[in-house]
Amino acid sequence: MRDIIDDPDVLASLSHDEAEWAPYGKPLGAVRPRSTAEVSEVVAYCAERRIPIVPRGAGTGLSGGANAVDGAMILDLSKMNRIVGIDAANMTATVQPGVVNDDLKRAVAGHGLWYPPDPASSPWSTIGGNVSTNAGGLCCLKYGVTRDYVLGLEAVVGGPAGAYGTVVKLGRRTTKGVSGYDLAGLFTGSEGTFGVLTEITVRLRPARREAPRTVVGAFAGVVAAGEAVAAITRAGLLPAALELLDRTCLKAVEEWKHLGLEADAAALLLAQLDTPGDDEATAVANVFREAGALWAEQSTDEAEAEALFAARRLAYPALERLSPVLTEDICVPRSEVPRMLASIERIAARHGSTIATIAHAGDGNLHPMILAAAGDEQAKRAAQGAFEDILSAAIAMGGTVTGEHGVGLLKRAGMRQELSPAVLAMQVAVKQTLDPLGLFNPGKVVG
Amino acid sequence: MRDIIDDPDVLASLSHDEAEWAPYGKPLGAVRPRSTAEVSEVVAYCAERRIPIVPRGAGTGLSGGANAVDGAMILDLSKMNRIVGIDAANMTATVQPGVVNDDLKRAVAGHGLWYPPDPASSPWSTIGGNVSTNAGGLCCLKYGVTRDYVLGLEAVVGGPAGAYGTVVKLGRRTTKGVSGYDLAGLFTGSEGTFGVLTEITVRLRPARREAPRTVVGAFAGVVAAGEAVAAITRAGLLPAALELLDRTCLKAVEEWKHLGLEADAAALLLAQLDTPGDDEATAVANVFREAGALWAEQSTDEAEAEALFAARRLAYPALERLSPVLTEDICVPRSEVPRMLASIERIAARHGSTIATIAHAGDGNLHPMILAAAGDEQAKRAAQGAFEDILSAAIAMGGTVTGEHGVGLLKRAGMRQELSPAVLAMQVAVKQTLDPLGLFNPGKVVG
Repeated sequence: MRDIIDDPDVLASLSHDEAEWAPYGKPLGAVRPRSTAEVSEVVAYCAERRIPIVPRGAGTGLSGGANAVDGAMILDLSKMNRIVGIDAANMTATVQPGVVNDDLKRAVAGHGLWYPPDPASSPWSTIGGNVSTNAGGLCCLKYGVTRDYVLGLEAVVGGPAGAYGTVVKLGRRTTKGVSGYDLAGLFTGSEGTFGVLTEITVRLRPARREAPRTVVGAFAGVVAAGEAVAAITRAGLLPAALELLDRTCLKAVEEWKHLGLEADAAALLLAQLDTPGDDEATAVANVFREAGALWAEQSTDEAEAEALFAARRLAYPALERLSPVLTEDICVPRSEVPRMLASIERIAARHGSTIATIAHAGDGNLHPMILAAAGDEQAKRAAQGAFEDILSAAIAMGGTVTGEHGVGLLKRAGMRQELSPAVLAMQVAVKQTLDPLGLFNPGKVVG
Repeated sequence: MRDIIDDPDVLASLSHDEAEWAPYGKPLGAVRPRSTAEVSEVVAYCAERRIPIVPRGAGTGLSGGANAVDGAMILDLSKMNRIVGIDAANMTATVQPGVVNDDLKRAVAGHGLWYPPDPASSPWSTIGGNVSTNAGGLCCLKYGVTRDYVLGLEAVVGGPAGAYGTVVKLGRRTTKGVSGYDLAGLFTGSEGTFGVLTEITVRLRPARREAPRTVVGAFAGVVAAGEAVAAITRAGLLPAALELLDRTCLKAVEEWKHLGLEADAAALLLAQLDTPGDDEATAVANVFREAGALWAEQSTDEAEAEALFAARRLAYPALERLSPVLTEDICVPRSEVPRMLASIERIAARHGSTIATIAHAGDGNLHPMILAAAGDEQAKRAAQGAFEDILSAAIAMGGTVTGEHGVGLLKRAGMRQELSPAVLAMQVAVKQTLDPLGLFNPGKVVG
């Protein structure tokens, strides 16, 4: 094998993602392939020697899904960053896995097209990583998650397909298709545990014809904001995005970036509306007011609206500047958002933890972020207690332990709590069938 | 086991779906369970005796997916037709598999909600059948297919989950969720080959606020209509539906239903637009004209627009009245629609077959319907030759052999032509893992 990286500093930097406190091992080496053929070669080489293979993109994951295990080969796909083709006539694009989400967005915008999935990491995270975790984002409420845009995948696999290193094309290039089981769907969100993605064909939408409207509502508490979220659904409104930011998040961003944000309220809701006309924006502002907002208004200043959504995207790194952050990713039925937010407040008080919350509130997907100062072992233990209590509360409300970040390492115990033994056994059986040697990203999900 | 139906006439009527010429065997018996517990009991009973299990809904399938094999137990789920709950606050509904699509639509409309998937069979076909085939429909272009609406499934399974008869809950009730592999997605479109669906939770959308606009365009030939379809995508337009009907279909419906349709053109395109305002409708009419329509106009008469879409939905039964019909279901990239339509005309001429075409043209999903008079063996052989040639042509254009009807029996050979041996081996391995005894709907898809 050519070009195995063994520099300890480089290997260390490639050994984990951004999940705080998720364990990681010491890899054997790393490779940075540039083609499907090279990936195939690496997989075959590793399989012969029974070396575990840990694929990674930009390493922006928050569950430890890209963390190395001892003796693993890191497959860093960031150099496979070519946009293979944009097919405007069919509204599809085909990319290598290392293409950055925002780079794809920009490229297709040049053809009057739009790739909607927009995780907050979109300036850095890759399409391969997005597909592997089935990444969500801000506009999922109306436009769905990554898997709603995955049409076809090329992957390097082993197991029933043949020798490890076999290249397969899964899924399709057409809008619809039901020829055989949906293996492209099964691979989406499988966190590299079935094989290594080497090419991805996504569906695109026509670009939006006008700038979306932004409505901001300020609330005296996060629970009150949660009530407004539930009221939006009851009113039959479907914003493109409906985000919640609490005061801690707003202040952290403002102290770092000086965007001119005012944090006079305990929580802000940001709604983005993209149907033509102002009717929907007016309706959302009215619902906010009726639900008890301190104030609510349609933003007439585009720069201000941009700054608010920028604040939302920057919340995670802004908090991380202040302290290590243990990020939650629960999703509950929308109607349970107020109750879940109240529960988070009680859990924070019980453990004496500081919890800042951002949320894709319209989806019921909440990111309570538990802060614990570096080196403060007591705070860290408290944070871990709060983390587990939040997962249990979400499950009790009919929710899930991970809405969009993936199981990785951090949610393995929570997943075992959420799924029945029978369903876990089905999951394990599918993993063992598609990767009988257990070489693809071992220890993640159910591996 | 109680209540096994053995009346030969009833069994005969339950032994096949609407796929012409797909073979079917002689079942051992049939049961009509009313609860999950009864399904579990039947599956356990059959597994002990190694009796194959063939689940069915309304039997409106067009690929033979519900056809009996010799000695099978038919599991007729049409009596499990209870709407378990409509959760308006979370925009979801939970139903038993035998609920008819249009009945679900009507029930949720009472809550200001909408269940979009709309196969032409929606007055008769069941949600269980729709999920099992991942049914499409008219509004997929903008709103997606059945699988885009499936959140959670309850199923009776065997294999790794435990003894045959084990009840599992797959998927979730939340908007987003990535806790483990997407088994609910894998079961969607699996045609009953992994287990028997007993409950389905679907996502809903807010009801549309105003009646959609209809634009009709008439063309001198189907290929010219196909060119207009490609031009719609190039113009960045995304209608809710974009349907094609050829003259043979229009005449068959008119002769039967007397809707007052004029069949003065070789092909009609019907576009449905549901964004507020008339801009999109005007743009579509203009594209039709620029693409060479004989005439194109926005329908101002709602009854006329309804009649045109009714004609579209009735095309299949209207043709079937005249003659046995072999229905195709290919899907090609949108840009290939004109070339594929031209290819169908050549294939019809080559085999001396009459082929009437309806199409979800905006999706590239074409239903050329090959007519062959009952008892005319030569016409039947010609039809089968044309059927195979159409599949090969679709694959050659980067398309698939089934866009929405499923593999069943009729597309097994086509699927083998479309998928690589490695991918087929993965499909077979997944089937064997989840149904090691091979009891669930044997002989369908890859079973």
